[in-house]
Amino acid sequence: MTNYSEIKAEIIAIGDELLYGQIMDTNSHWISQEMDKIGVRVVRRTTVGDNRDSILSAFKSAESRADIILMTGGLGPTNDDLTKPLLAEYFGCDLVLFQEALEAVRTFFEKRGRELTDLNKLQAHLPSNCTYIPNELGTAPGMWFEENGRIWMSMPGVPHEMKKLISDHVIPRIKGMFKLPHIYHKVIKTVGIGESWLADLIKDWEKELPNHIKLAYLPSLGQVKLRLTAFGENDNELANDVEKEIEKVKPLIEKYIYGYNQEKLEEAIGRLLKSHNKKVALAESCSGGYISHLITSIPGSSDYFQGALIPYHNRFKNRILNVDATTLEEKGAVSEETVMQMSEHIRNLFDADLGLASSGIAGPSGGWAEKPVGTVWIACAMQGKTVTKKLQLTQDRMLNIQLTGVAVLNLLRLCIEGKTE
Amino acid sequence: MTNYSEIKAEIIAIGDELLYGQIMDTNSHWISQEMDKIGVRVVRRTTVGDNRDSILSAFKSAESRADIILMTGGLGPTNDDLTKPLLAEYFGCDLVLFQEALEAVRTFFEKRGRELTDLNKLQAHLPSNCTYIPNELGTAPGMWFEENGRIWMSMPGVPHEMKKLISDHVIPRIKGMFKLPHIYHKVIKTVGIGESWLADLIKDWEKELPNHIKLAYLPSLGQVKLRLTAFGENDNELANDVEKEIEKVKPLIEKYIYGYNQEKLEEAIGRLLKSHNKKVALAESCSGGYISHLITSIPGSSDYFQGALIPYHNRFKNRILNVDATTLEEKGAVSEETVMQMSEHIRNLFDADLGLASSGIAGPSGGWAEKPVGTVWIACAMQGKTVTKKLQLTQDRMLNIQLTGVAVLNLLRLCIEGKTE
Repeated sequence: MTNYSEIKAEIIAIGDELLYGQIMDTNSHWISQEMDKIGVRVVRRTTVGDNRDSILSAFKSAESRADIILMTGGLGPTNDDLTKPLLAEYFGCDLVLFQEALEAVRTFFEKRGRELTDLNKLQAHLPSNCTYIPNELGTAPGMWFEENGRIWMSMPGVPHEMKKLISDHVIPRIKGMFKLPHIYHKVIKTVGIGESWLADLIKDWEKELPNHIKLAYLPSLGQVKLRLTAFGENDNELANDVEKEIEKVKPLIEKYIYGYNQEKLEEAIGRLLKSHNKKVALAESCSGGYISHLITSIPGSSDYFQGALIPYHNRFKNRILNVDATTLEEKGAVSEETVMQMSEHIRNLFDADLGLASSGIAGPSGGWAEKPVGTVWIACAMQGKTVTKKLQLTQDRMLNIQLTGVAVLNLLRLCIEGKTE
Repeated sequence: MTNYSEIKAEIIAIGDELLYGQIMDTNSHWISQEMDKIGVRVVRRTTVGDNRDSILSAFKSAESRADIILMTGGLGPTNDDLTKPLLAEYFGCDLVLFQEALEAVRTFFEKRGRELTDLNKLQAHLPSNCTYIPNELGTAPGMWFEENGRIWMSMPGVPHEMKKLISDHVIPRIKGMFKLPHIYHKVIKTVGIGESWLADLIKDWEKELPNHIKLAYLPSLGQVKLRLTAFGENDNELANDVEKEIEKVKPLIEKYIYGYNQEKLEEAIGRLLKSHNKKVALAESCSGGYISHLITSIPGSSDYFQGALIPYHNRFKNRILNVDATTLEEKGAVSEETVMQMSEHIRNLFDADLGLASSGIAGPSGGWAEKPVGTVWIACAMQGKTVTKKLQLTQDRMLNIQLTGVAVLNLLRLCIEGKTE
C-alpha cells in the first residue's frame, strides 16, 4: 500500500491477571491506536504471564521482527513482578539504584504525606543500561533502552500512567529518531444515525474517493466516527486533499456531525454552550447522574454547568422539583408530561437557559407491557419552547443509561443549534 | 509450581483491525476467563494481522508451547481473510467443499430471505482435515483439528458467534479429552490502602502460604485485589484450604475488605445499605454526578438511593441546599464546614439515613497555594454524627473525580459498619 520503509512495533503486555482474564488488556489497544496515528506499523501484540521463560522468549521473538518494542506491566514492587530483573538479565547488566528515580519516589510519597517503605525503595533499582523516564503519576518508572539495534520501552500497566509516558516521552522520541511515513488522519464525528444509514447517505461520495484516501467506519455506542486517512509525500497536500473531501461530504450529513478528531460529544456540547453563552441544568432520573458526570468531566465545565438534581423517587420529583402530583399519578414518572415539567422546572431552579430531563425504565426489572424496560422519555426546555423525545432502548441497564446520555446530549446540541424539527 | 500435568492453551487473534486499534480484542479476554474456569492454563495470547508470514509463524510458535490453540478471526469471505487457506497450507492439505457447511450457509441466507452469492459459497470450503463445527449464529464455520499432537480450533471473530462455539462445542470437547487439574480461585477486594502498605501488613502471612496456593496483588484506582489461587486434586479440599487462609489474613486487614470475587465497591455498598435497611442521598460538587452514577448503575439501587443534588456553584449550595452563606464566604466551598453542612442538609432534603457530600478542586485549573488542585473535602452525615475527611489527590481532573468516588463510597462503608475512628 505504501512505498517507503516501514517502522515496525510490537507490544508486549505482561501479567498473569491478563492471561487469566481478570483484567482486560486495554493498554495494547490504546497503544495500537497511538502508533497507527504516527505511521508506526504494529505487527504483533503478545500477552505473557509472570513467568521467566515466557517473558524472555517474548523479548527474543519481538526483537527478531520489530524496530520498537513497547512493554507494559510487571513493574510493581512485589515479588511476582519480573519485568525489571528479566530486562537486566536479557541485556546482561545489573539492577542499580538510580538516585533520580529514588528522589521521584520519595517526593511522590512525601506529597501524599506518607513514608517510604523499603519495598517502595526497590522501585528505584533499574537495569544499569536504561534511560530513566520519570512517571509523574505513579511510582513505577518508565525505562527506555537502545539495545541490539532496537528501541525498548518498559512502562507500568496502570493505564493513565502508561498513557502519559507514551504521549509525553515515547512518541516525541520515536518521531525524533525515525523517518516516519507521511500520513494525514481526520475523523468526522457523528451522532444520532446508525452505521448503515450513514453509509447509504454517503455511498456515492465514498465511491469517488481518490486512491490515496481511505475511509473507515468506526461505530460506538450511539455514535459513528468516519476516519479519512491519506498517504503520500507532502503533508500540506495530504491535509488539503482530505479537507476537500470533507467539504464534499459535509452537506450530505450536516445534521449528524458534532465535531472532528478527538473531540468528545460532551466537549462539543461545552464548546457550543460557551460560544452561544448559554448555561445548562439537568434533572436526571433514569440516567442517575451519568449525564452530569459526562458534562462535568470536561475542564472548565463550571462556566456553563449550573447544577443538577437526581430525584430518584416520585415524591422528590414533586417536593423538590415541583412536578405536578396529579401528572405523576395519572401519566406516571415515565411520560412526556412528567419529563416536560422536569426540564422546565430544573431550568428555573438553577437559573439556566436550557433545562434537560430524563425519565425511564433502565431495567433489568420494573417494566410492564405498556412501558417495557428500555422506555425512556427525554426533554430539553428552552426559553418559550420544550422539545421532547421518546426512546425505545435495550434490556441492558448500563447500555440504557449510556444511550440515554448520548441521546440527551444530542438533543441539547440540536436545540442549541436550532436543528430540531 | 504444580505437580500434575497442566493443559496449556494459546489464543491467537487474527486481523489488521485489531493491530491498528480499530476494534478492541475483547474475544481473547473472554476466552481467557472461560479457560481459567475449567483449569486450562492460558500461557500466551498473540494478535497478528492479515499477513501470511505473521499467521504461519504464530501457528508454529503456538504449537511449540501449547496443547490447545484457539484462533479467532480471518474467516470472512473476502480476500484479506487468510485463516482457512493458511491452516490448509500449514497442515499440508486442500480446501474442499463441505456439503454440510454449504447447506448451513444456504439455510442461513434463506431464513433471512437473501440469495446465496458465489462469495458466500466459498465459506463452505474448508481444509480437508478439519471437523466441521456448525456456527448457528453466522456464516463462518467453526473448524476443529487434531494435528501434530495438538488441538486447534478456528472460530469467527464476531463475539457472540465465537462465544456460542466455545460454550457449546469447545469446552465440552476439551473436558472430554483432557484430565483437567482442579483449581480454586478467590479474590479478596480491598479499598483505602495502597499495594505496598497492604503487602507490608500481610507479609508474614504471605510467607507462610502453603506451596499449592499462589497470591497475586491486583491494584486498580484506589483499590487492591488479592487473588488466591489453589491447585490440587480435590475441589472441596482446595476451597477449604483457601478459606482457611482467608480466615487467617482477615483480622490483619479487616478494615479494608469490602467484598469478594466479582463484587464491585458500589455493589457492596448496595448490599450493606439493604442489609442495614438504610437509605442514602448525595450532594456532589466536585464529583459532579459520578458517585450517583456508580450507585445507580447497580440494578435495584432505587431501593436505597433516594436522590442527589449537584449544586455546582455557591449560590445553589446556599439557595437549594441551605448551606450557610457566611460559611461559604468565610470558609469557602472547599472546606470542612461547607461539606459538613452539605452532607447534613442533603440527608434531610431526601429523607435519608445517610447523607454524603463532596467538595473540592478537580482541576486542572482553579487551585491556589492554600488549596491546590486535588484538594477535596468529603463527608458522611448520620443520625447525630457527621464524619469528614480531607483528600489530597492529583493534578488530573478525571482521576480526581474517580478517586473522590472511591473515597466517598469507602467512607459510606465505614460509617455503615461503624468502623470510622
